[in-house]
This record gives sequence, structure tokens and C-alpha cells, in this order.
Amino acid sequence: MPEATGVIGELVEANHILFDQGVVDGFGHVSVRHPHAEDRFLLARSVAPAMATADDIVEFDLDGNAIDGHGRTLYLERFIHSEIYRARPDVGAVVHSHSPAVVPFSVVSARPLRAVWHLGGVLGEGCPIFEIRSVAGAATDLLIRNAALGAALARSLGAESVVLMRGHGCTVVGSTLRQAVFNAVYTEISAVLQSEAMRLGTITYLTPEEAAAALACNAAQIDRSWELWRTRARRRLQPQA
Amino acid sequence: MPEATGVIGELVEANHILFDQGVVDGFGHVSVRHPHAEDRFLLARSVAPAMATADDIVEFDLDGNAIDGHGRTLYLERFIHSEIYRARPDVGAVVHSHSPAVVPFSVVSARPLRAVWHLGGVLGEGCPIFEIRSVAGAATDLLIRNAALGAALARSLGAESVVLMRGHGCTVVGSTLRQAVFNAVYTEISAVLQSEAMRLGTITYLTPEEAAAALACNAAQIDRSWELWRTRARRRLQPQA
Amino acid sequence: MPEATGVIGELVEANHILFDQGVVDGFGHVSVRHPHAEDRFLLARSVAPAMATADDIVEFDLDGNAIDGHGRTLYLERFIHSEIYRARPDVGAVVHSHSPAVVPFSVVSARPLRAVWHLGGVLGEGCPIFEIRSVAGAATDLLIRNAALGAALARSLGAESVVLMRGHGCTVVGSTLRQAVFNAVYTEISAVLQSEAMRLGTITYLTPEEAAAALACNAAQIDRSWELWRTRARRRLQPQA
Amino acid sequence: MPEATGVIGELVEANHILFDQGVVDGFGHVSVRHPHAEDRFLLARSVAPAMATADDIVEFDLDGNAIDGHGRTLYLERFIHSEIYRARPDVGAVVHSHSPAVVPFSVVSARPLRAVWHLGGVLGEGCPIFEIRSVAGAATDLLIRNAALGAALARSLGAESVVLMRGHGCTVVGSTLRQAVFNAVYTEISAVLQSEAMRLGTITYLTPEEAAAALACNAAQIDRSWELWRTRARRRLQPQA
Repeated sequence: MPEATGVIGELVEANHILFDQGVVDGFGHVSVRHPHAEDRFLLARSVAPAMATADDIVEFDLDGNAIDGHGRTLYLERFIHSEIYRARPDVGAVVHSHSPAVVPFSVVSARPLRAVWHLGGVLGEGCPIFEIRSVAGAATDLLIRNAALGAALARSLGAESVVLMRGHGCTVVGSTLRQAVFNAVYTEISAVLQSEAMRLGTITYLTPEEAAAALACNAAQIDRSWELWRTRARRRLQPQA
Repeated sequence: MPEATGVIGELVEANHILFDQGVVDGFGHVSVRHPHAEDRFLLARSVAPAMATADDIVEFDLDGNAIDGHGRTLYLERFIHSEIYRARPDVGAVVHSHSPAVVPFSVVSARPLRAVWHLGGVLGEGCPIFEIRSVAGAATDLLIRNAALGAALARSLGAESVVLMRGHGCTVVGSTLRQAVFNAVYTEISAVLQSEAMRLGTITYLTPEEAAAALACNAAQIDRSWELWRTRARRRLQPQA
Repeated sequence: MPEATGVIGELVEANHILFDQGVVDGFGHVSVRHPHAEDRFLLARSVAPAMATADDIVEFDLDGNAIDGHGRTLYLERFIHSEIYRARPDVGAVVHSHSPAVVPFSVVSARPLRAVWHLGGVLGEGCPIFEIRSVAGAATDLLIRNAALGAALARSLGAESVVLMRGHGCTVVGSTLRQAVFNAVYTEISAVLQSEAMRLGTITYLTPEEAAAALACNAAQIDRSWELWRTRARRRLQPQA
Repeated sequence: MPEATGVIGELVEANHILFDQGVVDGFGHVSVRHPHAEDRFLLARSVAPAMATADDIVEFDLDGNAIDGHGRTLYLERFIHSEIYRARPDVGAVVHSHSPAVVPFSVVSARPLRAVWHLGGVLGEGCPIFEIRSVAGAATDLLIRNAALGAALARSLGAESVVLMRGHGCTVVGSTLRQAVFNAVYTEISAVLQSEAMRLGTITYLTPEEAAAALACNAAQIDRSWELWRTRARRRLQPQA
């Protein structure tokens, strides 16, 4: 994959940033669509994101098959990525996580996660919740273990950027890798703020027009956060002298 | 700007402290009125505060025009600063942030943020909330993008030190740079404490006289916190050996 | 104990990980059944887990007697470990802690801690709570100071993996050391998530079948977290250069 | 003060530990009764506790006068210490702080802070709250600025170990320096746990007998925590290589 060198480096950074920003822990994963092949994507082997290096990045096709797996263990849930890339040509990157402030919203369907401030514009009028029981019954381990479940999740996501997964976490997309990471970080922060605001009283949410305008504005500001997050992650994850 | 060297160094420190104390993240900004020109102020170019250096500081006039921008990208919301300096001759520094514990109070108008303890004396009997819809309709991206919006925000601030911005964050002022930073840090902490106390039961708030006396007392104690915060920020932001 | 070298090294790591992940502070302890003697177990002398080294590990019999104590001070509550190993041949390791998000559930019996997400599968349909007053009256210091109290706690644990201890903390077991640590870490995280979700509204908990399936799935993923946690603990606990 | 060298070193450690454990920030202070003079005590000059060194320690008499002040600025609230030492011969050390989880309990009188777990045994059946308005009216800055206010606070403390101060913080005592620090740290943690438990439902608190037994037990365990806290504080406060 010589042509993918730059994107691999950025994908490794994305792994580290998502850990450092508290979106992923030992679990969760982030992928990017191959820059030169729309039907391929790049994703780490089964490894904690904070530990990922360039050597851990594997190329996949849209059936979730590893092109260059070399026998390495793969994420069980790679079908989250493959099926969203298949269903959504506009998507350039996918983050799956157990984002800690988001999980509670995934199990309380009466309280949609929605845009409460401008940096949560991506949440719009409320995120869909994927209920795996609706498609696979009430005895699964909740994981997206195959293409059929991945496709069902992608349908639940629809044209949105964030889908919650009941009792599990969420999946967040973006047109670029940096945008997907940005959306994932601010989905987590927004969930904290909304929980807190709900306890204070009745919330004035963003109007759909405000959320859309804020989302467009945020898209132009992503690099400023990326520079900061990259620097912080390097400092906190690099081995000490 | 040779005459402004000392203040530039302190402004860089203020940027780093506000990040280290959790008031700003990739976004937010802090300015100081020019020490030798009442109609000028100093503010970083568009950069994450934790990353700001002396070379990033730009001089502005009260119309929000950069004097020495040299083509650098500027904060979209510099009009927060310019219009508050215009309206409030007593203000020497301005902090704009998305202070995480404050945002929830900005979207629940029934629960004013007010002085619950002596270090929150600056909040007095309750902070005003700037509702951008009142002046620009319900389809903005919530940013203070021009002088008219800045002037409207300054009117909402009035003679107070803290104004909340609905679905966005807050703006905090002080007579000096250190005081503005102190006010911003303790506005964030006070919001945490008030949220928590509200959940316990009915709060005994400070009387207006207590808040005013505490505010006067705090003003004489700022350097003690500044020394601590500067040391902590240097330790945590400097590159590792 | 030359034959136990490997397990001692891992037990020291477990001590450090449990501190670094916020499960234990100055108090709490973790033990492992002796790999070559079913009626023996390994546990540190009375020391804060973060400070434990291989030299601090002591071998005990199932009456809680130190085999090689050499006069060192022992944990008062070593009977938690001895009596659970006696009662539960399937248990290979035991963690006792004052896990901060779990303690509140220990004092509110109306709100069982149970599986709210897949990584909390170990909590099943709700954890038992050990009420020491039931066996020792209402004037104890709440500690498991002798074999009789340890046996009573083991009865309360029954065939489960987690037992809460009223006004005290919890005890978590696993078939291996890594699994016990994994269960302890995710019991703490799950308590945070359940508390938060309860405040949002009515929760859709995992079904018993979902919890069991998730638990089985998690068991195969433990090493991924262990590698991460070990790396983080080493970085944060090792002396600085 | 050559005879006090050992205690001065430990007092400096206490300052650093209280910061590192989140009990104090730029404000708050800790004192110890002079080991060779019952009517004297040692307390830092006015400095952020994390920044204190042995050179900052000043000796005071029980009127709050500095014996060796050498013109250094003193804490305005040194009368908290002097009057408690005068009123309570059993007290060997005093911590005053704005302990963040305790402040909310200070402003909601309907919810006493009390022993919810064994490590909070020191809180007994509920802490008194000092209401400065009762003795000095409703227009003070809430500080204990003179001996009369210190004496009033000492009366409110009575024979207890913890007194909350409305809209301000708390003061915690111990028979030794290490015990006062231990009590202060676990008062903060206990407040977090009680707040959380209150939101879950009706709490089973410790009985008075349980609280007393737990308090006696904890007193014998303090050094284990102290060793840990000292090590952590040194690591996090020492200058980086």
C-alpha cells in the first residue's frame, strides 16, 4: 500500500486521539475509506486503539474480508464499517465506540440525543437508536458480527451522521477521517452536556436550521482541534524518556 | 509591538492556563486591551489556545480589524472582544469559552447561574443569558460573526462580568488579564457546584452583599492562583524531555 | 516460590492496573489461586496496591494463614479471599475494592446493579448485596475480619461473579486473574453508566440471554484490554527519569 | 525551629498531598500543632499549597500572630487554626479547604453529610454547618478573618472532626497531621458517594456504632494511604527532568 502511506499515518493518529479524548478504551475502532479505491477501506487488526501502529493497519473489501490480513486477528465488528461504506458513498470514515456518555442515551429511548449546542450540530433533531433485537432477537451478544447486521445498522443510520446502538455504544461517520473523529469527540461531549442540562430543567435545543448552520461552520474548524488533539495524544502516549 | 512584550507573554500564559484548567479546548479565546492604546487589543490568530505562542498574537482595533494580521486566519468571533472593549472602558481583558459546566445553564433559562459560594461572587444574583435568536433569528450558527452581534452581546452583558450565550458558552471579563482568567476559571467551577447543590435540595445562595464582599476579597488573591496555574500549565504543556 | 514467578509478576501488574483504572486507591486487594496448589493463594502484604512489588507477595492457605509471612503485616480482610477460594473451586482470582461508582449501589438496595450494556454482562440480572448486619449485628466496622464473615460473604456471592458489600464496596471474581481484573474494571464503569442512565429515564436492560452471550464474548477479548492497561499503568506508575 | 524539622517536612508533604488529591486548589491550608509547644502551631505563609516549601512554613501563637513572619503575607483565615487549637486540646492538625464535593452540602442544610460507608466513619451521624450569618450578619465575605469568627467556628465544630462552612467549604481536624489529611481526603470522597447514592434512592447509612467502629479501624490504616499519596504527589508535582 505505498500510495496509502499518508492516510495510514493519519489513521494511526486517529486511533490515538480517540483514546486520548476518552471516546474509546480497549475497545472501539476507526476506519477510513481507501483514498484510491472506493470499494476498500483501512482498519487496524484487533488491537486497542491506543496501541495501534502503522503495521497494524489492514486493508478490507466491502464484504469485510481482509486483503492483506496475513492471519492477523480481525475486529469481530468490521462489518459496521464495510456495510456503511457500501450504503453511504458520501462517507469517508467511520468510528465505532462505547462512548461512555452516549451509552446511557442508547438504553433510554425516551430521551433522544440531539443538538443542545453549536458543537453538537451533527446530532440534529435527534439520533436514531439501533435496536439489535428488532433484527436478531433478544439473545445476541449485541455485536455486529456479520454483514446482515452491518446492513441493518447502516439502514438505522440512514442519512444521519450518528447512530446509537442499544446497550452497546454508537457509530459516527464523516466525509473525511478528521471529520469523523471530530464528530465522535463532540458527540461524547454533547452527551455529557445534554445529560447535565436535562437535570437542570427544560432545554432550549437548537432549531434544525441552527444545527445545520453550526454543522457547516464546524466543518471548517476541524484542523484547529486536530492539531491540538494530535499534540496531546503524542505527549501522553509516547514512551517516556 | 516592543512595548507590549510583557503583556504578550502573560497573554500566552493565559491561553495555556485556560486550557489546562478545562475552560477552553480547541476552541475559545482570550484577549487583553493594549496597555498603551485604549482602542486596541491583543488576541491570538485562529489557533487552539494550548498551542498559542507569542508569534501568534495579533493586534486589533475596535472594529475587529487586524493591525498586523499578515494574512493569518483570524478568530471568526473577534467581535466579542472588540465590542466589549468599546462598550466597557473598565474592562481590561475578555475570555470567550465553551466552558463545559456553564453550557447547560445557557440552555435552561429557568435556572440562573448565580453565586452559590464565595469564589463565585462574580456571578452575583444571576448571570444574563444572551439569546442570539432575539437579534438574528432562529437560523444562525450561533457565532458572533460581526460587529452588530458583538454589540448585542455587549448589551446583554451590561455592567456584569459574565454573560451566558444560549447553546454556545459564555463570555467573562475582568479589569485585568489575570482577573478575567480567574473569573472564567471560577465561573466553570461554580457551575459544577451549583448543579450538584441543586440536585441535593433548596440552596442558600449568597446575598448580594455577601457576593459583592467576596468578589472584592477575591480580587486581592488572584496572584496566588495565577502562580499555581502557570506552574501547572507549564509542566503539562511543555514538550517532554 | 520459584514455580510461581510468572504469576507473581502478573499479580503485581494486576495491583497496578486496578489502581491506574480507578478501582482501588490506598485500599483494596487482589489475589490469585496458586497455580500448583488449589488450597493456596497469593496476595500482597498490607500495602497500597499501586506500591506493591514482587517482594510484597505472600502465600496463604485457605484458613487465611500466611505460609511465608515473615512477620509482615497482612490485610485484615484476607478472609474474603480464603473463603471464596474454599467455596468456589471455579474461581481463580478475587478482587476486593471500594470501587467508587459501586459503593452507592451497595447502600440503596432498591436499585440493583445489573447489566445495562454488553461490557457489563457479568452483572447479569442484578448483583447480590452482602449486609453484614444480618450476620454480625449493627455495630461492626464492616470489615471481613475472620473466616466466619468470609464464609458468609461467599454464601452471599453464591454462584455469581460480583457481590456488593453494604457501606463498604464489592468483591469480584474470575476464572483467571486477568478475567477478575477485567470484571472489576467493567463493574466500576458499568455502575457509572447505570447511574447516569437511571437519571435519564426508564432503562432497557440486557435480557438474561444477552448478558450471558455478552459475557461469553467478552471472555475472549480480555487480553486486548490487559495489554493496554499494563502499558498505561507502567507509564503512569514508573518513577520518572 | 531546628527541633521541628521533621514535622515541617511532613507539613510540606501534607500541602502537596491535599492538592494532588483534589481537596485544595490555589486556596485552602493545613496546619499542625507545634510538637514541643502546645500553644503554637505551624502553617504556611499565604501560598498555594502545591507550591509550599519548608521555607514557607511560619510559626504562630494561639492569637494567630506570626512568631517568625518576617513580613511575609499570612493567610487571612489563620484564625480557623488558632481558635480550634485553643478550644480543642485533642486536636493535633487542622485542614481548611473548599473541598469541591463538600461545598454543595454546605448550602443545602436539609441534607447533612454523614457516614454512608466505612471510610466516611469520621462523618458520624451528620456534620454541623457553620452559618456565618448567625454571628456576623448577611454581608460578610464569608471568611474567618478574626479570632471572634474563629471561636464561633470552633463552637460549631464542637467535639466533631468535620464542620461545613456555608457557601465556603469545610474544616477538618485530626489528632495527628496524617489523620487530619486522611479525614479531609475521605470527607471529599464520601461527599461524592453520598451525592450519588442520594440520587439512586433511600440510603442505608452507617449506624452510630458502625461509624465509630469504622473510624477506630481507619485510624490504624492511615500510613498505608499516606505512603501512596506522598509518592503520587512527588511524582506529579516535582519539576520534570
